[in-house]
Amino acid sequence: MSEESPVRYLSLLYRYFQIYLSEELLPYHIGKGQALFLLFLYRFEGVTQDEMACYLHIDKSTAARALEKLKEAGYVKKVPKKDDLRSNQLFLTPQAWEIEPRLQEVLRRWSDILGTDMTEEEFALATGLLKKMTENAIDHIRDVKQIKTFPGSGMKVKGEGDQG
Amino acid sequence: MSEESPVRYLSLLYRYFQIYLSEELLPYHIGKGQALFLLFLYRFEGVTQDEMACYLHIDKSTAARALEKLKEAGYVKKVPKKDDLRSNQLFLTPQAWEIEPRLQEVLRRWSDILGTDMTEEEFALATGLLKKMTENAIDHIRDVKQIKTFPGSGMKVKGEGDQG
Repeated sequence: MSEESPVRYLSLLYRYFQIYLSEELLPYHIGKGQALFLLFLYRFEGVTQDEMACYLHIDKSTAARALEKLKEAGYVKKVPKKDDLRSNQLFLTPQAWEIEPRLQEVLRRWSDILGTDMTEEEFALATGLLKKMTENAIDHIRDVKQIKTFPGSGMKVKGEGDQG
Repeated sequence: MSEESPVRYLSLLYRYFQIYLSEELLPYHIGKGQALFLLFLYRFEGVTQDEMACYLHIDKSTAARALEKLKEAGYVKKVPKKDDLRSNQLFLTPQAWEIEPRLQEVLRRWSDILGTDMTEEEFALATGLLKKMTENAIDHIRDVKQIKTFPGSGMKVKGEGDQG
């Protein structure tokens, strides 16, 4: 892969984000492997474990492990679903809602770090181009690969309304 | 996190890349969890398992599992290090080198997918802005967090020569 490939930078950015996250989430006893699930629940509280694994394209056992840790840390509770007692709906505890603003702040700071020494215009341009790339990725995964994508990914894609 | 945050798009892009990779690597019996290690070895063949885990900021047991799978699939061999027989150097098999061009092609195609409907100028601009973001991330992780970063990350950072 060329040094100048966006794929290379995207991979590096992801890895550095994971390093940043693990450090920043230490005080909250949240591992970087659990952060994704917690952030997902802030948006989609009430989903079942299997629905979550499916939407995040993560295997069920990995999702189960992460959610168990979040439960032990006191952030998530599982409630049997009314019409299907075998599956559990996932809800956030008051403790999880209490730290939400701080987690959002951690994410906002990473965004600021990435934009260091950029003008406001450059930063907006970068965000717009990343949005376009994400839409292209979604189109490919959904249309070519026929794989279910995130609900409410916050983007309009090919003639569909925003489901977010 | 705002819908328009680059962090949100970067996270989505990473997840969709993982989905794409798992599908594309199926014929080679390489899981998405192993791809990173294999791609790293194409660049840094001869490192030890611990060095690799350290540079990729992945815990040793996860790295060990991924490398064991790559070994079983016939892509990686472990050779005891001459001056330290307790640690193994990692080398690629001819089979791994044989598929390298095809793996690079898989990455190049993803890059093309991301750039769908972009002009050449927009794509170059996006790549440049991602490079700048990656440099900012590296600066933060290395200087603020004092954490070791990738060798040969292919970028000049704050007065240093490119180590790649």
